[in-house]
Amino acid sequence: MSNHQKPVILAEQVQSPLINLKPLTRKVYLSLNPPSSLDNRADVDQVRQMLERSYGCVNVPLALMPRIPVICRSAKWQLTATLADNGQGWTVIDIEPGDTTREHFGLAIDIGTTTVVVYLIDLCEGTVLRHAADYNDQIVMGEDILTRIRHSGELGGLARLQAAVLNTLNRLIKSLYPLPIETGKITAAAIGANTTMIHLLLGLDPASICRAPYTPIVNNPGFISAKEIGLEIHPLAPVYCLPSIGSYLGGDVIGGILVSGMHQQSDISLFVDIGTNGEIVLGNEEWLVACAGAAGPALEGGVTTYGMRAEPGAVDHVAIDPKTGWISYSTVGNLPARGICGSGLVDTLAELFLSGFINRNARFQNGLQEFVVVPAHEAASGEDIVVSQVDINNFMATKGAVNSATDLLMENVGCAWQEISHFYAAGAFGQYLPIESAVTIGLYPDLPRSAIVRLGNSSGEAARQVLLSRSKRLEAEAIAGKVTYFELNANSAFMDKFSGSKFLPHTDLDRYPSVKRRLQSNA
Amino acid sequence: MSNHQKPVILAEQVQSPLINLKPLTRKVYLSLNPPSSLDNRADVDQVRQMLERSYGCVNVPLALMPRIPVICRSAKWQLTATLADNGQGWTVIDIEPGDTTREHFGLAIDIGTTTVVVYLIDLCEGTVLRHAADYNDQIVMGEDILTRIRHSGELGGLARLQAAVLNTLNRLIKSLYPLPIETGKITAAAIGANTTMIHLLLGLDPASICRAPYTPIVNNPGFISAKEIGLEIHPLAPVYCLPSIGSYLGGDVIGGILVSGMHQQSDISLFVDIGTNGEIVLGNEEWLVACAGAAGPALEGGVTTYGMRAEPGAVDHVAIDPKTGWISYSTVGNLPARGICGSGLVDTLAELFLSGFINRNARFQNGLQEFVVVPAHEAASGEDIVVSQVDINNFMATKGAVNSATDLLMENVGCAWQEISHFYAAGAFGQYLPIESAVTIGLYPDLPRSAIVRLGNSSGEAARQVLLSRSKRLEAEAIAGKVTYFELNANSAFMDKFSGSKFLPHTDLDRYPSVKRRLQSNA
Repeated sequence: MSNHQKPVILAEQVQSPLINLKPLTRKVYLSLNPPSSLDNRADVDQVRQMLERSYGCVNVPLALMPRIPVICRSAKWQLTATLADNGQGWTVIDIEPGDTTREHFGLAIDIGTTTVVVYLIDLCEGTVLRHAADYNDQIVMGEDILTRIRHSGELGGLARLQAAVLNTLNRLIKSLYPLPIETGKITAAAIGANTTMIHLLLGLDPASICRAPYTPIVNNPGFISAKEIGLEIHPLAPVYCLPSIGSYLGGDVIGGILVSGMHQQSDISLFVDIGTNGEIVLGNEEWLVACAGAAGPALEGGVTTYGMRAEPGAVDHVAIDPKTGWISYSTVGNLPARGICGSGLVDTLAELFLSGFINRNARFQNGLQEFVVVPAHEAASGEDIVVSQVDINNFMATKGAVNSATDLLMENVGCAWQEISHFYAAGAFGQYLPIESAVTIGLYPDLPRSAIVRLGNSSGEAARQVLLSRSKRLEAEAIAGKVTYFELNANSAFMDKFSGSKFLPHTDLDRYPSVKRRLQSNA
Repeated sequence: MSNHQKPVILAEQVQSPLINLKPLTRKVYLSLNPPSSLDNRADVDQVRQMLERSYGCVNVPLALMPRIPVICRSAKWQLTATLADNGQGWTVIDIEPGDTTREHFGLAIDIGTTTVVVYLIDLCEGTVLRHAADYNDQIVMGEDILTRIRHSGELGGLARLQAAVLNTLNRLIKSLYPLPIETGKITAAAIGANTTMIHLLLGLDPASICRAPYTPIVNNPGFISAKEIGLEIHPLAPVYCLPSIGSYLGGDVIGGILVSGMHQQSDISLFVDIGTNGEIVLGNEEWLVACAGAAGPALEGGVTTYGMRAEPGAVDHVAIDPKTGWISYSTVGNLPARGICGSGLVDTLAELFLSGFINRNARFQNGLQEFVVVPAHEAASGEDIVVSQVDINNFMATKGAVNSATDLLMENVGCAWQEISHFYAAGAFGQYLPIESAVTIGLYPDLPRSAIVRLGNSSGEAARQVLLSRSKRLEAEAIAGKVTYFELNANSAFMDKFSGSKFLPHTDLDRYPSVKRRLQSNA
């Protein structure tokens, strides 16, 4: 993994406007009375009593007490207190001279197995001021979660993995600058991540996550101070991790549900996030069921010969004229093609299918062995960039797993596919895949296009929401308490479904009326 | 100050039985469900959820999380959690294998300017298991509070003073052993001490305590963890300091009021503690007024030529036959006399007065210059141990200050001396002074003897009570919010009273009917 390549990492968020901001930390301007013989309360007590008028019982740590009288006198009794929510009440974590209430910053963080995004949030306005993204430094210790968990069991492995993600985070935090603030002025952080990423960040052994009965050490770690982890912001800044539900359903998924709003709608929605892992959630305001599994890197370029991540030079869009068989494509950054990323692959498959190059079994027709997407003379390497039958088969395994898992979830709750009113596509899976092609090959359901919603980096957006809103945080915890996890590995019906679901777009073509129409019109 | 001498330090407490013990820390035995596919909650979450059934929102620190799964498995899912009150809710501070709920210990601590007492409390039963006492190591940096405050302003002075009191405390804690527990099993502490002692213990600059407008840095420090101070018990043990009211009215006095119960009686009581400092409180369930000042070491042997603390060889009781003028005395430990301690001095003065050797002005009669308490041949040094007119004058200054301060307090609230129903004498001043003699010279009021109550080490007893009882802690905080401090230094009437109050037993002899009768019968 080279850091010289500028990766395309999903940072865009579908930002919901939040009303009535109640961030994890508050800044309160205090104008105190200089002590006199009439009011000779102790300085610390006066600060606490003023804050307690609005914030209930307030805790002032011993470490801050010596600074309070000094700042009181140097700043002529005008000061700003920063209060942090500790889950039980408020703790003063900083005292600054004068009125600094407008300088109020926090971080929303999305830690993916592959990529990490840090957003600097203005806690007064709720807006994203800047963001920075990079690959997770842990990748050198394993591309997928299972490899990382194994690595954490080696001597010093857990500490190395923790240090790696902290290095990534602290480097990204520094890269948010130059700004008119120091990193110490960032006084809160909220994190969306899968359960293993949270364990590694907190230095907790993830071994039990992948061993029956698959219990993590903790699902809801509560509030942890930045210095306990080593996150280089204000040392007493509260760090809140979105709660997870279990080993395979992390805070990133809870965050996705939160951002989608599906937990508040009477209609049934389907939520899908396919990254290094895949998670599927089905439900409405009354019930939520979910399943998850390792998705493999199918959509991150890992299963095809010429697959690559969505970096410069990746083929990201493909069209085939069904009449002539002529292909047209685009690449990230308009550079000579180096490979094919997820969206390019989805387009290629859909176009091959619509043009009749592959059939409903996803098999090349008429003796074709492979399809040249980019001819040698246009490719950066000077070699043809192709999609082979093996590539297609590998991809179909992922797609088939998504289809069969979804079908099992629906069967399990007795929900027919006609009942699904909304489809929420999270992460890069939702953001970059071409909707028509994704429907054509059956990755997305064939709903009215307005009912297909791309959530963007919903893990990062959920982190922003819980950073800024107490009610959103309680909502996230309520979601975590409500989701029923459906164990696929324990279900032999999954393998039956799986082997029967490797069709384009789906075993049951009637579920895909728009695709059926296009096939008929192309025929 | 030699540590080889075994000091007589007041450790006795008038222990009130406490009903419904609610100590600062609780131990809760948990029998968890081993995780299964039916209940695969995370270990930390299961522990927290079980505790939250009885304790509301419970915080589990990150530092404890890695140990929970390990102990769960090694102890077959039977474990004991120690919860600490943090003022806002409960935090888990320890997890032990098996059921250790009966091993539950805390410390009640009295830190005096001169002496320090540590009590080991069984938090299950509420009883004192052991105690240890010693002089405060800070004494080498100054005998009185003002000298210590000055010392704290020197380079490194504050750190030296903090280290000195911590050395004293940690040495005393170790001296509580051998016991079947480690110091790490002591999971809570409560402290009664004056405001300066608390500042020095917490490492807070006490400079403002002795500078107008006499505001401490903090009066109510709340809960502080033992490791933040350096107290060598469980590092996360909450340390609670009885709240103070101001620079000169500390948690030791609030504790005295709490233990006396005067704040809950309809009758008016007078509370007096004369140690290195003197504090006087007057009031009832409706109001409380208090004043304080440096008492000087009059009762600790510091103002007379042959004065000494109540150590072995100190003359502690004296009687003079009014007919013959013959003297009899006893010494601490029945050793050859080395000097006279407070109780011996009070006896000597009372007996000199009743025998007519000194008059109501406390002046020797008939040309006498001094009085030989112990003749040379009985004294350890081989020299006469005497009380001189200068010694008496110095002592009368302290006594006069106590009388005039009390009178001013009463005048201030319009309370006549006949209205006082109870007299609470705290500390060594209450424990060791002979009651009849103390009344005779006017240190104690002339009340029915059953209304004169010795409170013992009420600072230590109050610490025990708030360690064990949440309602007592709230009561202490309510007292701190209720007492009106009466500033003597700011009151020119004090000096007038003072100069007029150097009589035996008091300017107004009618206030001392029993003394008046004895004088008449001796005449």
